[in-house]
Amino acid sequence: MALSTQPYKGARDFYPEDKRLQKYIFSIWRNVAERYGYEEYDAPILEPLEIYLAKSSKEIVNEQTYAFKDRGDRSVVIRPEMTPTVSRMVAAKRQELAYPLRWYSTPNVWRYERPQRGRLREHWQLNIDLFGIESLEAEQEVICMAHDLMVAFGAKPDMYNIRINSRQLVNAVMQDYLGLDQVQSATLSRLIDRMHKMEHATFVAEVDALFTPSQREAGKSDHLLDLLKIKSINGLPAQLKDHESVKELSQLFDSLKNLGIANATFDISLMRGFDYYTDIVFEVFDTDPENNRSLFGGGRYDGLVELFGAEKVASVGFGMGDVTLAGFLESHSLVPNLQTETDIYAVSLGEDTQRAQKVISELREMGLNVATAPNGRKLEKEIKTALKKGIPYMLFIGEKELADEQYTLRDLKAEKEERHSLQRIVSIVKDYRKQ
Amino acid sequence: MALSTQPYKGARDFYPEDKRLQKYIFSIWRNVAERYGYEEYDAPILEPLEIYLAKSSKEIVNEQTYAFKDRGDRSVVIRPEMTPTVSRMVAAKRQELAYPLRWYSTPNVWRYERPQRGRLREHWQLNIDLFGIESLEAEQEVICMAHDLMVAFGAKPDMYNIRINSRQLVNAVMQDYLGLDQVQSATLSRLIDRMHKMEHATFVAEVDALFTPSQREAGKSDHLLDLLKIKSINGLPAQLKDHESVKELSQLFDSLKNLGIANATFDISLMRGFDYYTDIVFEVFDTDPENNRSLFGGGRYDGLVELFGAEKVASVGFGMGDVTLAGFLESHSLVPNLQTETDIYAVSLGEDTQRAQKVISELREMGLNVATAPNGRKLEKEIKTALKKGIPYMLFIGEKELADEQYTLRDLKAEKEERHSLQRIVSIVKDYRKQ
Repeated sequence: MALSTQPYKGARDFYPEDKRLQKYIFSIWRNVAERYGYEEYDAPILEPLEIYLAKSSKEIVNEQTYAFKDRGDRSVVIRPEMTPTVSRMVAAKRQELAYPLRWYSTPNVWRYERPQRGRLREHWQLNIDLFGIESLEAEQEVICMAHDLMVAFGAKPDMYNIRINSRQLVNAVMQDYLGLDQVQSATLSRLIDRMHKMEHATFVAEVDALFTPSQREAGKSDHLLDLLKIKSINGLPAQLKDHESVKELSQLFDSLKNLGIANATFDISLMRGFDYYTDIVFEVFDTDPENNRSLFGGGRYDGLVELFGAEKVASVGFGMGDVTLAGFLESHSLVPNLQTETDIYAVSLGEDTQRAQKVISELREMGLNVATAPNGRKLEKEIKTALKKGIPYMLFIGEKELADEQYTLRDLKAEKEERHSLQRIVSIVKDYRKQ
Repeated sequence: MALSTQPYKGARDFYPEDKRLQKYIFSIWRNVAERYGYEEYDAPILEPLEIYLAKSSKEIVNEQTYAFKDRGDRSVVIRPEMTPTVSRMVAAKRQELAYPLRWYSTPNVWRYERPQRGRLREHWQLNIDLFGIESLEAEQEVICMAHDLMVAFGAKPDMYNIRINSRQLVNAVMQDYLGLDQVQSATLSRLIDRMHKMEHATFVAEVDALFTPSQREAGKSDHLLDLLKIKSINGLPAQLKDHESVKELSQLFDSLKNLGIANATFDISLMRGFDYYTDIVFEVFDTDPENNRSLFGGGRYDGLVELFGAEKVASVGFGMGDVTLAGFLESHSLVPNLQTETDIYAVSLGEDTQRAQKVISELREMGLNVATAPNGRKLEKEIKTALKKGIPYMLFIGEKELADEQYTLRDLKAEKEERHSLQRIVSIVKDYRKQ
């Protein structure tokens, strides 16, 4: 029986036309990251299971990891995210590194999820992390980068917004304002995280069920529902308004506004799934009502490096996945027209294929990307092949061409042929590339 | 107890300084591949176990795979090589694709081996594959590419040679010339593969043990030992010299010579581990007597696409691993001086950090990579930080600078400071980058 030609469920084969889109995404990721002085790092896709047990989402660790024992009986996981890995790497060289440390990576990460639109089992993720800055400058920088990334992909400010919240504020709400214990807080946090995916009545009922009768009598559940309607920090009740975290949020919104970022808003319902966040968190949302979903996000996670036995390091970062991003680009018609990197499809027409090979080598040395047609095939067939591959030019090298060093260049779009020197051919093709 | 900061055994963390070397290697890989009109593809790191069972090396499948059952009880493997994957992808679109198909990829692959010099559990591998050319043009092209890759990495022809053999010829030797059965042939092939790693006397004894007494009496084991001494196809015994495969080899050596490749030699002991090779095979060897090892190789594997239920496709390819390559570059002093991508470390000196931020944004828009120092730190400390990071320039933005739009640029190598406009700064830094 023949073997299946399908890729593993929920993961993608990238044929060259698919890979072009991914290369485009990666090039923008790298470009923006390096503009801000971030340096690329990487790490093995396998990590010990332990590093996810402490602070990642329990849902991910227990239900979604690709965990197994290796041939040496070690419990390993194909990484579901990069933050524990980068924290491990910083911890390993805590004393030697020069802070602030700006690092980025573009790893593939794996989660065993039910594949659906915008969610696959394997995706690639830009990871941006800034270590060693305790002040809001760090949040300001990474949110600016998130914004610049969207701009670099061609997004207009009305296509997305940046929602910001504070874990410190959420803690104050849960403990001080609502008087909830730790178990209630954790349950409520997960409930709010799913709030926009459920009927409002169901949500209200689940909120009610979560409070004790005396808490309900004291109006705590109503306080929560009122709080969730607030659209700006100015709307917060007096008791919360003076909290340190609100001052920080206010300062952050001011500085983002000063830097020309007008689509950042306060969202007290923003929870984010990971347990390691400690302060400001943010998420970028698609504003399209048909696709009003989180695109990517991040925040401050100051305690994670410490878990690896090193001194605490201030840490702020975010991750941007390629699947969700590609969905956004497609739905907003932002995918550019991406073409093959190959410039010329060269056909040797005469007997002297070795001399033709040398001409082709020269073109390559002069910087062109040249694929060659197999010798002895029909010309019409080769023109069809070049068109199918989307290569812009063909070059015919026959005996006449070799004799007077003028080669026939066919512009496949214009269906036009002209004879030129190699120099001229290189300049024509390089001009075309720049268009 | 603190979590370990070590990466998974036999795999590497890439700190930015390590990643720079990998980025350099990848850029040369991509550059040479695209010069020859190859297009990049990719695929999931997980594949079904089945695709390796038929034709990969049994040693790899049974002892070296990272195989496990996923949460849906599927037997999966973290890919140990890319050839079965690319064959699967071609088979899936056999009819739609335009041949010749030139594809490359740079995947990471995993093998559970004992980590040692030049051999790790995770490595990255350039995979070059050319589909749809039955003639020797295909072998000629990929061997030229192997040669061009070495040249692009700065290798001189005396640093390596290209050893070439033919599976068709090996089959003729085993079956017709030596009269061995299939089991004997397979054993002998594995034995020859290890020949250069064992004492010659041991090798001879094992060869003797493999032949039957009557074969030994007929002089077959001596014939084999004589054959293994041959350095060129001209030295082959008359019985083999007329074999079709020898004509092919002769033609291939001629065309490589014509293209200026003088370091290709015949090596009848070249076996290569995979069962899927069907004809010409080749390997590039380091000629350094201290490190006389195989660097990379490939060959023709015409039958693999067929296993996936598609019509046969002529296939020639090779894989070049980053670990072995990096070892070669280091031992021949070919690793270039690789620096950070960050151009400027900017320090805001005045109160107006928001205005300084805008200057920095302008520099980024003009194409420079600028990291910023946290506000309010001591200047000496920040100079040390920039030096430690290897950033070539610092920029100081104080009130005076903002007032007359002339900013202080410090060349950290020359320990020299000058005030310039942003335009001028961009041109100075871009000139430095070109050096």
